[in-house]
Amino acid sequence: MTPFSHPRATRAAGQQTRRALLDAAGPLFAARGLAGVSQADIAAAAGTFPSQVTYYFGSKEALFVEAACRGVLRAATEVERAGDRTRTPRTYVRALVDTALASPALLTFVEASLLVRRRQELAPRVRETFARLHAEGERAVVENLAKRGWQIRTHPGEEARGFWAAILGVALESAASGEAFSAASADATVQLVLSLYAP
Amino acid sequence: MTPFSHPRATRAAGQQTRRALLDAAGPLFAARGLAGVSQADIAAAAGTFPSQVTYYFGSKEALFVEAACRGVLRAATEVERAGDRTRTPRTYVRALVDTALASPALLTFVEASLLVRRRQELAPRVRETFARLHAEGERAVVENLAKRGWQIRTHPGEEARGFWAAILGVALESAASGEAFSAASADATVQLVLSLYAP
Repeated sequence: MTPFSHPRATRAAGQQTRRALLDAAGPLFAARGLAGVSQADIAAAAGTFPSQVTYYFGSKEALFVEAACRGVLRAATEVERAGDRTRTPRTYVRALVDTALASPALLTFVEASLLVRRRQELAPRVRETFARLHAEGERAVVENLAKRGWQIRTHPGEEARGFWAAILGVALESAASGEAFSAASADATVQLVLSLYAP
Repeated sequence: MTPFSHPRATRAAGQQTRRALLDAAGPLFAARGLAGVSQADIAAAAGTFPSQVTYYFGSKEALFVEAACRGVLRAATEVERAGDRTRTPRTYVRALVDTALASPALLTFVEASLLVRRRQELAPRVRETFARLHAEGERAVVENLAKRGWQIRTHPGEEARGFWAAILGVALESAASGEAFSAASADATVQLVLSLYAP
């Protein structure tokens, strides 16, 4: 063992604990929201001490925001992959909408976006996540158009922003309706985004 | 005075108190959210006793949901009126989006939609409000198309649903950004809805 191996090992263990907390927190928050989950619940699910939530994230709220942002960015990656497997604008847009709405992180992200109104110190992470959603979404649209030779009626960045706005709105309506998602509003989002595609 | 005048007067006074509580609660909740406003705050602003919140609404949360739903339905009426004053599809859609996003009730309604996930007894009012937003929106689109002779690429009901989904999403992003609203995402929503309009 070199004198440096111990700090390295500690850092790796720390990263592992941090990831374990995030992995455990994601599904708990998705199912029960911020108020329905305690630090003790998360620690129990992650196999850590409750104090480690504070040690690694600062607060339960900060872990909530981090889990929400990580979750929605993962959903965005899955959305892009789902789009790649389709052949027509209609099946492409349908796959984007259905894959996005299937993510359990969406409502956690909606709740996180509201939370940071009164927790300004946590707002930068949510803002940065919106910016990444839009930037990655724009890049994905540009690449997809180039690859397929499809055309749209607006700027690719506007497709990406409009897509995520409508998806978050449908997720919110689904929360109120108690359904997995509102099928009619999902269909409407497909039509809205699809109408960008010529002809 | 007839024997009936006293009950009638009492009922009228009750309706006035109820309305005073709603009128006072709307701006307070819009500015500070559910957790940031107490029954005593609302009662002080309305000139009533704190116990009257419970008497007329059952709980602060029920008053919150009622204020949110009333507020967003009023916004919908204003959106329709703003659309009437325009002449082209572009100015029409722009007016709808800007008027909707200017409503302080939007974020209260977003928060109410999340709240009812864990307050199932309050969910019917939010669901009914989504249904009215969509039904009134569809009627407004149908009337507008008939009056102007404009055509759209999808069903009017889908324009209405897609519009409100995207509006709620933009309102949410604005909450996180701390701005009045996210101008780029508002523009994207305009483009998305406008792309429904032929040619």
